Amino acid sequence: MTFLNPNIQKEVFKKKPIKAPILFEQLSKGDITALSQAITLVESKLATDQQIAQELIALALSKSGKALRIGISGVPGVGKSTFIEAFGKFLTQHHNKKVAVLAIDPSSQKTGGSILGDKTRMEQLSQNPHAFIRPSPSAGNLGGVAEKTRQSMVLCEAAGFDIIIIETVGVGQSETVVKSMVDAFLLLLLPGAGDELQGIKRGIMEMADVIAINKADGDFEKKAKIAASEVRRALHLFPELYSGWTVPVVPCSALHQKGVDEVWQKLQAFETHLHSQGLFEHNRRLQMQEWFQQLLRTELLEFLLKEPELSKKMAALETDISNNLIDPSAAVQQIIKAIKAGTASN
Amino acid sequence: MTFLNPNIQKEVFKKKPIKAPILFEQLSKGDITALSQAITLVESKLATDQQIAQELIALALSKSGKALRIGISGVPGVGKSTFIEAFGKFLTQHHNKKVAVLAIDPSSQKTGGSILGDKTRMEQLSQNPHAFIRPSPSAGNLGGVAEKTRQSMVLCEAAGFDIIIIETVGVGQSETVVKSMVDAFLLLLLPGAGDELQGIKRGIMEMADVIAINKADGDFEKKAKIAASEVRRALHLFPELYSGWTVPVVPCSALHQKGVDEVWQKLQAFETHLHSQGLFEHNRRLQMQEWFQQLLRTELLEFLLKEPELSKKMAALETDISNNLIDPSAAVQQIIKAIKAGTASN
Repeated sequence: MTFLNPNIQKEVFKKKPIKAPILFEQLSKGDITALSQAITLVESKLATDQQIAQELIALALSKSGKALRIGISGVPGVGKSTFIEAFGKFLTQHHNKKVAVLAIDPSSQKTGGSILGDKTRMEQLSQNPHAFIRPSPSAGNLGGVAEKTRQSMVLCEAAGFDIIIIETVGVGQSETVVKSMVDAFLLLLLPGAGDELQGIKRGIMEMADVIAINKADGDFEKKAKIAASEVRRALHLFPELYSGWTVPVVPCSALHQKGVDEVWQKLQAFETHLHSQGLFEHNRRLQMQEWFQQLLRTELLEFLLKEPELSKKMAALETDISNNLIDPSAAVQQIIKAIKAGTASN
Repeated sequence: MTFLNPNIQKEVFKKKPIKAPILFEQLSKGDITALSQAITLVESKLATDQQIAQELIALALSKSGKALRIGISGVPGVGKSTFIEAFGKFLTQHHNKKVAVLAIDPSSQKTGGSILGDKTRMEQLSQNPHAFIRPSPSAGNLGGVAEKTRQSMVLCEAAGFDIIIIETVGVGQSETVVKSMVDAFLLLLLPGAGDELQGIKRGIMEMADVIAINKADGDFEKKAKIAASEVRRALHLFPELYSGWTVPVVPCSALHQKGVDEVWQKLQAFETHLHSQGLFEHNRRLQMQEWFQQLLRTELLEFLLKEPELSKKMAALETDISNNLIDPSAAVQQIIKAIKAGTASN
C-alpha cells in the first residue's frame, strides 16, 4: 500500500457530484457504466442518492416500456444460470437483441449475500457487450427489493435494452412479485422428477405462460420428453389463464444450446397472443396501478410515522394493543379518525 | 318440500337480531354454537355483521392471550390432518386441554373451496366435545384471511380453549403469516425423501421451532430415524433463531399415536425456553404491533379511496402512470402532499 499525501488522496477520492440529467444522457446512449451507476443510486439508502435516483426514474420513464419483460423461475439446480446464459447468447447473436438480466431473491437478505451470486455465474453473458447482468438488491424486505428491481427495469429500458429478464428462485412469494412486473413468465422444470417432487407449487405452475424442461440432454433427453407430456397433462387440470393460450411445454438443453430457439418462439407467440387480445397493454396498465398502490400503502405508513401527532398516537395505541386494552382493528379506526379530524393538516 | 303459509315461513326464518354482549356471554361459557356463530360474523362481509364482530372482538380481547398458539405446516401428503387428529386427541385425553384448530389456506380462494376441506378430515376430533375445528376462511386475499384467523383466535381463547392450532399448507407465503401469529411453529416432514425433494423451502425450515418426521411407522420407521439425523445435520447450517434453543427433530407416527407425546414435550420445552428468556411476551407484543401496522396499511388505502377529493386525485394519477407521464413513486409523493395540505380534513 502506497501512502499518498493526505491532501492528494482526498482529491483523488473526492466524488464528483452526480447530476441526474447528465447521467440520464449517458445512460440513454447505452452507456453501461452510467446504467450501473444509476442502479447503484436506486439501491442506495442515502437520501441524497435517492433524490437523484427519483429524478433519473422520472426522466427514464418516457423512454421505457418498449422492452419485452420475461420472468424466469425454477427450483435451485434446474439450471437457471446456464439457461439464461444460453438464452441471452442466442438473443444477442441471432436476433440482435440487447439483453438485461435482473434478479429478485428475497433469501439474499437473510443470508446476507445473494444466492444468485454475481456475474461469474454467467461468464460468457457478462462479457457480452450487448448484455447487462445485475444481481438482486440485498437490502430491505421483498416489497423493497421488488420496488428497486422495478426502478432498475425502467433504467435498463431507457438504456435501450430490448429484453429484460427477471430471474428468481422458486420460493412462491418472489414468483408472485415477479409475475406482477413481467409480460411473460417462463418456468424451468427438470426432467424425470414428478412435479410434486420438484418443489414446484401448484400456484407457480398456474403462473407459467411457457414451460421449458431443461437438461434434456444425454440420458435425460427421453426423460424430458416424457416429463413434457406429463406436465402437459397436468396443465389440462388447471383453468386457462388466457383464453386461447395453451401453455406450451418445451424440452430444451441450455448446456447444448438445444431447444432454446423454440422457447424463444413460444415466448414471442405468447407476446403476439397478448397483443391480439389487447391484453399486453392492459396487463401493463394493471401492473403499474398495482405498483402505485403497493408503494402507497408502504409510504403512507412511513408518512404517518413521521407526523409527530400521529406517531405519538400510534405509539400509545401500540402500548394499549400490547396490553390487550384495544384490538388492532379499533386502533386503526382511531388513527383514521385522527386523520379525518385534520391532524395531518397542521 | 312443504309449502308453508308465506307469513308463517317468514316468521320461522326471521333472524333474531344478534347482540354482541349476549353472544359474548354465551361464548365465554364455552358454548361452541356461540363461538361458531361469532366466527361466522367475523368472516361475514355484511357491514352490520362486521360491526357486531368488532364489538365481540373488543369484549373477547381482555379474556384472550392465555392459550398456547401453535402453527403446524407441511407439504400435502405429510399427514397433517392425521397428526392434528392424534395430537388433539392426546391433548384432550391426557392433558385435559381444550383444543381449537383453525386454518390458513390461501389456495382455497383460487379453487373456490378449501383444500383443507371440512371437519370430515378429522372425524374423531370433530366429535370431541373439547375440540373445535374451523376450516380456512375462503374470502379475500392472504392478508384478509390472516386478519380473520387472528380475530377467530381471539374468540377461541375467550371461549376457554387452551391450545390454538393454526394449520397451513406448505406454500411459503402462508407460513410467514402463520409464523407471525403463533408462539411455536411445528414443521412436519416425511421420512425418506431428501428435504430438497419435499418442496420444503429453506425459508420454511428456518421458521421451525420443532420438527416432526411423520409416518415413522412400519417400513418407514428406520427411514424416519435416518431422515431425522439428516435434518438435524442440515439444521446445523442454519443460524440459531433463538440462542440456546436447538430445534428438536422428532420421528413420530400420528397413525399409530407414537411420538406425539414427545412432540408435545418439545413444544412445551420451547415454550419454557421462551419464557425463561423473556421472549414469550416479547414475541407476542411484536406480533400485535405487526398486526396493527398490517391492518393500518390496508385500511389507510381503503380510507383514501373513499375520500372523494383523494380518490379523484388517485384516479387521475393512475391514468398518468399508465401513460408513463409520472412514475408511481412521484405519484405517491403527490398523494402525501395532498393529505398534508389538509385534503383529509374537510
